[in-house]
Amino acid sequence: MNHPKPILDALKRPLPPALETALAARFGERFTVSQAVRDHHGKDESPFPTVPPDAVLYARSTHDVVAAVGLCREHQFPLIPYGAGSSIEGQLLAIHGGLSLDLTGMNRVLSVAADDLTATVEPGVTRKQLNLEIRDTGLFFPIDPGADATLGGMAATRASGTNAVRYGTMRENVLSLTVVTAEGKVVKTANRARKSSAGYDLTRLFIGSEGTLGIITEVTVRLYPQPEAISAAVVNFPSAAAAVDTVIQTIQLGVPVARCEFLDPPSIRALNEHSKLELREAYTLFFEFHGSENGVAEQAAVVQQLSTDNGGADFEWASRPEDRTRLWNARHNAYFACLQQRPGCKAISTDTCVPISRLAESLEGARKLLQASGFQSMIIGHVGDGNFHCVILVDPNDPEEMQRAELVNDQIVRLAQSLDGTCTGEHGIGLHKIGFLADEAGEDGLELMRRIKVALDPLNILNPGKIFRL
Amino acid sequence: MNHPKPILDALKRPLPPALETALAARFGERFTVSQAVRDHHGKDESPFPTVPPDAVLYARSTHDVVAAVGLCREHQFPLIPYGAGSSIEGQLLAIHGGLSLDLTGMNRVLSVAADDLTATVEPGVTRKQLNLEIRDTGLFFPIDPGADATLGGMAATRASGTNAVRYGTMRENVLSLTVVTAEGKVVKTANRARKSSAGYDLTRLFIGSEGTLGIITEVTVRLYPQPEAISAAVVNFPSAAAAVDTVIQTIQLGVPVARCEFLDPPSIRALNEHSKLELREAYTLFFEFHGSENGVAEQAAVVQQLSTDNGGADFEWASRPEDRTRLWNARHNAYFACLQQRPGCKAISTDTCVPISRLAESLEGARKLLQASGFQSMIIGHVGDGNFHCVILVDPNDPEEMQRAELVNDQIVRLAQSLDGTCTGEHGIGLHKIGFLADEAGEDGLELMRRIKVALDPLNILNPGKIFRL
Repeated sequence: MNHPKPILDALKRPLPPALETALAARFGERFTVSQAVRDHHGKDESPFPTVPPDAVLYARSTHDVVAAVGLCREHQFPLIPYGAGSSIEGQLLAIHGGLSLDLTGMNRVLSVAADDLTATVEPGVTRKQLNLEIRDTGLFFPIDPGADATLGGMAATRASGTNAVRYGTMRENVLSLTVVTAEGKVVKTANRARKSSAGYDLTRLFIGSEGTLGIITEVTVRLYPQPEAISAAVVNFPSAAAAVDTVIQTIQLGVPVARCEFLDPPSIRALNEHSKLELREAYTLFFEFHGSENGVAEQAAVVQQLSTDNGGADFEWASRPEDRTRLWNARHNAYFACLQQRPGCKAISTDTCVPISRLAESLEGARKLLQASGFQSMIIGHVGDGNFHCVILVDPNDPEEMQRAELVNDQIVRLAQSLDGTCTGEHGIGLHKIGFLADEAGEDGLELMRRIKVALDPLNILNPGKIFRL
Repeated sequence: MNHPKPILDALKRPLPPALETALAARFGERFTVSQAVRDHHGKDESPFPTVPPDAVLYARSTHDVVAAVGLCREHQFPLIPYGAGSSIEGQLLAIHGGLSLDLTGMNRVLSVAADDLTATVEPGVTRKQLNLEIRDTGLFFPIDPGADATLGGMAATRASGTNAVRYGTMRENVLSLTVVTAEGKVVKTANRARKSSAGYDLTRLFIGSEGTLGIITEVTVRLYPQPEAISAAVVNFPSAAAAVDTVIQTIQLGVPVARCEFLDPPSIRALNEHSKLELREAYTLFFEFHGSENGVAEQAAVVQQLSTDNGGADFEWASRPEDRTRLWNARHNAYFACLQQRPGCKAISTDTCVPISRLAESLEGARKLLQASGFQSMIIGHVGDGNFHCVILVDPNDPEEMQRAELVNDQIVRLAQSLDGTCTGEHGIGLHKIGFLADEAGEDGLELMRRIKVALDPLNILNPGKIFRL
């Protein structure tokens, strides 16, 4: 029941005219107070109403970011970094007002060190763009949230996606960041060595900090050789439990699946309609296997056996690259496909993640809560990690409905937390999960986060009011 | 040229009698000021002279640690957590005096969740102890520094070892920590979910903080299924360059080697003598492969081909478990084997880590610097990560020799840093690398670390003077 409305107006302060003049003088047409642009920068994929910033600045360089931070600091005025606008928990809503710093123009792949399996990019580079630009190297970047998010945003939210079960998340795949601090210093958090014990882990501190500790202006990521062989499979199950048991056993056996996704019948229906597929409307797992020809065959055989043992049927291979692409594109568009199931709706999407042995209890519990609620909803997710999303379709203009939906969300998250799980596997806290984080981290854990925030951003100008209340 | 001597005496302050009385009253015989015990707790595997703490306390519980922190805080007196005493860079030397908090008595495996592939242990549990206790589960914990270090110490130093190339380091393999803060609060940094986007990454903040931000009292780690098949191989090369090229190509091809270790002829000689092996005194790679029977065979075939292409010979298999155990035990004892090559010596061991494409330049450069120096030395390391150690044998009582050795160390580290590498892959900063970290992190990066330290330990009582100077 975390809504931004109550804290909005009390905290907002208009754009100081002197700051507006200075920004306009420094950045010309790249600075704007146009209402349409502000509105665009004040909404994300959360169910929250638009909360526009006071102005928008299109940054082109680290130098621009330093200048913008300097001016905002002088006026103690908030800055909110903006990427693809695809965050889900209200991360970029300007609840304290502020300047939206649009980084999408910083979209150059700065260097690809194919020999080192690394690339360094500006924060506005999207995951698809990076993979397109490195296609000829034989390498790929695996982290793939549903949206074609920017790498800066993905780092800021500690994002993951379908490949995380094999390749890890942004936490494991960012080697180094360049960050502009609240005081306008440019800090490179690490070098490109694969491992280091050199001091505090500044890289990991900024990953997941949602723009509250610094503004990411470069990201160095790990790349991977494209696997020699890939195969994907779709399997139907008689029940959610049967599908989940298959997943649990797969992970416990250590099968190095590259992808392992769960979809319930309503999700499949949404995908079929949105992406013109003809999948059976059943509890379904999508698998993908990466490795050598033999390795892939071995993995698939184990998983097929486990699936069969659990009552899985219609094990269907997507062996042609174009079939796989179609399948995974559909999966990546699932969120938008779900939204289309109820015109005009928005979605509240849970994002719980539990230890793998608790997945059945967590997912089955969520399913029952959703069923009892009567909401149109879908369950879909990265179950190999113990992570799934319940997408609850809501009318954002019906406060009573919103409140009921938040109550269901609340119950699902509390269930996961009671199972030694987290309120968010990959979406972050933003505004929506501030209450859940407070419970999860505990007062003393939260106090450490607050102290770090105050130490690094004493004027509280970097995306204030997100993750926790100071 | 970082020696603790100059900063020693000025900063030391005697144990306040009131604190001594209070600790003795609270802890009885588990608190001691015996000189022998203090001396034992004032030395590690670094070449530094012993710098004993003022007293030693044997903690048995998180509760003990809270009480000790409370008393030390009251008297603004330093605390230095102590594990196996196997740190290499002076991490536990009591340069400001203080109470050594010996955590080796906190050595219980608290829980093993085999279904989740996790275990939670007290900080004094050693890596060998953990693997012994979980042997029957079919799981293992891969992180293996040379010494049988404690998991608390390994977390505090962001340690790794021979398996890191495949399984990652403590950074990737700790899910959660319980930490006692400088103010005596008990904070659990995370739950057991495999991934989370819930707020700042406190887990990673404490990993590698070398006891300066909090005292680790529980560690939850990831476990892995014991591979279906394992094979190990030893290959000789005509030159260091030939061995290194084989490694670089192996990594660039994405072969998922589990272990990939380089040893130069003097290291092999030391191992042969110390562990009664009969390896050829040549530039050598030790490999290990984990996977299915077929997978292991495939990996080995690729590596064998690469080795042959680079002039490798005598590809020898260690297929029997007892042969492999002998081989890796010898490798783990390499540091001590090297020390035995010069009676009475100590070792300065570099620990550089560079991006894999720079490994040849880094290792060959180090080799030449060592050769020119005339020191008895060995090169040995986890080259699959770009990480290796030069072990320089020195007479700690010969200041001139120490200074010359530090100069060589300095040159080797600077070379790695110039190649986009780090001054420490896995040993940490301690006292010895404070100067290198300052250069590597830069003044602004270091300032962020200092601010975090001050925010979390405002009285500077937790292992003061390590990693950086405030």
